[in-house]
Amino acid sequence: MCRWLAYIGEPLRPSKIVLDAKHSIVAQSLDSPLGAETVNGDGFGFGWYPTGAPAGTAPALFHSIEPAWNDANLRELSRAIESPLFFTHVRAATAPPIQQTNCHPYRFENWMFMHNGAIASWRQLRRDLTLAIDPELYPNVLGTTDSEVLFHLALSLGLRDDPIDAIGRAIRMVESVGHSQDVQFPWQGTVAVSDGTTLWAFRYSSQGRTRSLFHSADIPTLREMYPEQERLAAFGDRAKVVVSEPLNDLPGAFVEVPESSALTIDPDGYRHQPFLVG
Amino acid sequence: MCRWLAYIGEPLRPSKIVLDAKHSIVAQSLDSPLGAETVNGDGFGFGWYPTGAPAGTAPALFHSIEPAWNDANLRELSRAIESPLFFTHVRAATAPPIQQTNCHPYRFENWMFMHNGAIASWRQLRRDLTLAIDPELYPNVLGTTDSEVLFHLALSLGLRDDPIDAIGRAIRMVESVGHSQDVQFPWQGTVAVSDGTTLWAFRYSSQGRTRSLFHSADIPTLREMYPEQERLAAFGDRAKVVVSEPLNDLPGAFVEVPESSALTIDPDGYRHQPFLVG
Amino acid sequence: MCRWLAYIGEPLRPSKIVLDAKHSIVAQSLDSPLGAETVNGDGFGFGWYPTGAPAGTAPALFHSIEPAWNDANLRELSRAIESPLFFTHVRAATAPPIQQTNCHPYRFENWMFMHNGAIASWRQLRRDLTLAIDPELYPNVLGTTDSEVLFHLALSLGLRDDPIDAIGRAIRMVESVGHSQDVQFPWQGTVAVSDGTTLWAFRYSSQGRTRSLFHSADIPTLREMYPEQERLAAFGDRAKVVVSEPLNDLPGAFVEVPESSALTIDPDGYRHQPFLVG
Amino acid sequence: MCRWLAYIGEPLRPSKIVLDAKHSIVAQSLDSPLGAETVNGDGFGFGWYPTGAPAGTAPALFHSIEPAWNDANLRELSRAIESPLFFTHVRAATAPPIQQTNCHPYRFENWMFMHNGAIASWRQLRRDLTLAIDPELYPNVLGTTDSEVLFHLALSLGLRDDPIDAIGRAIRMVESVGHSQDVQFPWQGTVAVSDGTTLWAFRYSSQGRTRSLFHSADIPTLREMYPEQERLAAFGDRAKVVVSEPLNDLPGAFVEVPESSALTIDPDGYRHQPFLVG
Repeated sequence: MCRWLAYIGEPLRPSKIVLDAKHSIVAQSLDSPLGAETVNGDGFGFGWYPTGAPAGTAPALFHSIEPAWNDANLRELSRAIESPLFFTHVRAATAPPIQQTNCHPYRFENWMFMHNGAIASWRQLRRDLTLAIDPELYPNVLGTTDSEVLFHLALSLGLRDDPIDAIGRAIRMVESVGHSQDVQFPWQGTVAVSDGTTLWAFRYSSQGRTRSLFHSADIPTLREMYPEQERLAAFGDRAKVVVSEPLNDLPGAFVEVPESSALTIDPDGYRHQPFLVG
Repeated sequence: MCRWLAYIGEPLRPSKIVLDAKHSIVAQSLDSPLGAETVNGDGFGFGWYPTGAPAGTAPALFHSIEPAWNDANLRELSRAIESPLFFTHVRAATAPPIQQTNCHPYRFENWMFMHNGAIASWRQLRRDLTLAIDPELYPNVLGTTDSEVLFHLALSLGLRDDPIDAIGRAIRMVESVGHSQDVQFPWQGTVAVSDGTTLWAFRYSSQGRTRSLFHSADIPTLREMYPEQERLAAFGDRAKVVVSEPLNDLPGAFVEVPESSALTIDPDGYRHQPFLVG
Repeated sequence: MCRWLAYIGEPLRPSKIVLDAKHSIVAQSLDSPLGAETVNGDGFGFGWYPTGAPAGTAPALFHSIEPAWNDANLRELSRAIESPLFFTHVRAATAPPIQQTNCHPYRFENWMFMHNGAIASWRQLRRDLTLAIDPELYPNVLGTTDSEVLFHLALSLGLRDDPIDAIGRAIRMVESVGHSQDVQFPWQGTVAVSDGTTLWAFRYSSQGRTRSLFHSADIPTLREMYPEQERLAAFGDRAKVVVSEPLNDLPGAFVEVPESSALTIDPDGYRHQPFLVG
Repeated sequence: MCRWLAYIGEPLRPSKIVLDAKHSIVAQSLDSPLGAETVNGDGFGFGWYPTGAPAGTAPALFHSIEPAWNDANLRELSRAIESPLFFTHVRAATAPPIQQTNCHPYRFENWMFMHNGAIASWRQLRRDLTLAIDPELYPNVLGTTDSEVLFHLALSLGLRDDPIDAIGRAIRMVESVGHSQDVQFPWQGTVAVSDGTTLWAFRYSSQGRTRSLFHSADIPTLREMYPEQERLAAFGDRAKVVVSEPLNDLPGAFVEVPESSALTIDPDGYRHQPFLVG
């Protein structure tokens, strides 16, 4: 459906992983080895928290309806800025329209969200799920994707207070509305969310067969394992990437995120916990 | 807010009035003498019923988010085809996003619709009005404009059976919902609708001060009045244009459509009637 | 590099082969089984001679920088018109920029041209080859592709009088300039050219290993071979397609065009001849 | 033809003058009080040297073919970054095509260039002037504008060693080639050039009637004159803007740059000198 990448750690020039890796997210836009679709050419998005911005600062967004692989602006931007926390997403549309409002990441205040996957029978479920969004938040829904509605459902259900709980409740609502309309496996997907300080990532599907998700291994450990890998010098000790599929073929560099789990990455490090199990 | 043009009559190469008139709709996109906004550069649309298509054929649409004035594709297309009934619309967005799904004309089956004007306090009224759309039609709403919602309200209220009645009922619903939320003058606008055979146009606003609307005078009469005007030879005897503002400065060539009226143009000619009066 | 399709025959709704075939040109844009690149998503173009237009009429062009596979306008247009002679091209850029002036087909007066392939070391040869264009024609060069320059070289060398001779001379000039700058195999490609009445196609490369090219078999014969194939009823007896790769898997439906040959298709039928041999 | 703005000084969030001024460059894109054209909606560009980048760093570029006034990405970008030296340009095309390679600013290594004006009879002079570009630089010409050719002529004539001399020699070459082809007033325009440390601006036309150009007054002086203007607190003491027309209506805030003069702004301050006089 799509491919995404989230980075948290020391301020980094995004091009290091958006452009300059064997399976960079831009390379994945044209040829995704593990993707449900090989080509993710239906637009892309990039969102970043500026270095040094105070807590609560809204991220900046760049959205484009053109394929990422030949987009000059994405190259320029990802080489010119640095950020301690950024998201990139390349889209393979399950359906048109191809428009900037259907490009991830989505934003509300200082919160940023992206998704790879789908709500099954979306055309059928769209109205009921859209109506379930808090009327105060409804005017911010500008596109037609299932992802944008899931984000606003989670915001309606307390994302700003407890992200893991709210994403769980939003997915449960999707499952509940889906089941009431005879949709067997309503939810499928991996999700990334951030408030600018902490990164949360989720892997879950109603059928228990979710799109792939990986996180990078500990950088100091990788440097010891691969002292000849000069590329690793580009990354700080706290650098962490969560990504739909590994950015390179280095054994041990990327670790699969288990089914039905939620990750939390913040200054204290990496933790994961069961998510929507049972 | 926008400018539009609707043509009905003998099959015509659209460029004759889309490009090659002093105040053609493309000229109006860059400089609209009577417009609420001078510039209508936030995308455009063109929709046409092919010549010789059987009754009930859906119109074809061309939408672009680029300004009409320098768009090469619009020039090519409007010179290459002929059509007995076509719509053109240039947009001045009251608000972003600029995306193809916000470009007029809109279409449902063989019905085509466009609008110049606005629902007041749209951000506030959007949810209630969207919910009033027939759930069967709801999945077809893909953009964020007030115009698209008005079209789907009219479809929900019987447009396909009685267009004048349904557009009237849809506007009354907008006024009713608006008044219930303290919006004094909820509706403003001119509307064009067609099923491929008949053209209906409407001019009405809650405040009684609607955007301008004109229809062209009878072509045989114009030819007698202006025998030296070679341009008139391009038009058939039944050719009729309804347009936000006159395409030229020829006295008598364009007649203002009165406030609160509905026009009907079909093979039997031109008629108008009071609309939403009292 | 790219994929292209040229149709000549009875007026046809282009969607029949642009959209509605197993390996339609739009399907090839996303997944091209025989292509040098799998994905041809760097824009596309469509050019057509209107039905009934007098000899010498310029074709109309539609160019877009978005991928063909989800482009709504291409779907609309190819279903709404009919044409006795049209070209479609999907681009896989060897290099940016992605812009409409780099989309095929190219046009000059009533002549239309498209190309799949490349001039080797183009960045190095571009200046000398561009200078070789007739100064009268130079102002019409608006993009940066090798293909556009080859077209204007052929126009400079007599395309309008003898297309096969002129395309041959233009390619020989490319080879000559290339060899003088130590480029071993300067030319690679398949080309289609038309004046609105006749279709010429070419397959040649300096190395003798040209991108694939096929033409469709005789339609009446195919109807006899495959009486159960209802799709064949859509095509007239004189319908002929020349295409980078077969549009379906029907054995015998598409015949490979030999290396180093030039095809001519006109009302008298199909002929081919050796091209640039020896 | 166009409008442009160049900033040099303490690192500034570009939105302060790109978006948030009465006659900001984005406001000028829709309505330019002093412009040769009122509307500058044929694409735009933004180029910036990152804060803290070492001397010799190439600037980053953002180009778009959409009008600036409703472009979401420009809003995001100009609010998210800071820069001690940036250019913005909004285009009113004298001719299509509208494509990113025709958007200013242009770049070569660490040099950035933009232009408002035109070479007269450009279609006629284009070939001779393009041929005069150093063949080593020729491959970098990707668009069709007179401006891009002037920049590459200046690079060919020593821009990197002596910008004022090289721009002067390039304009003289335009005049010489123009006069040889009976073009009376070949050059018209204002130009900005930077190497990342110094900003040069030029105002000159063959006819002596050049498009308007202004520079901002000394900020500490303005603060004394207008102590109640809180907006002035946003600017550092060394901040300087050169712009096609004043960004606000504050008397004394903007000073017209004289005809036939060259400006230099660097850490030592502002100087100007006669340019191409006599």
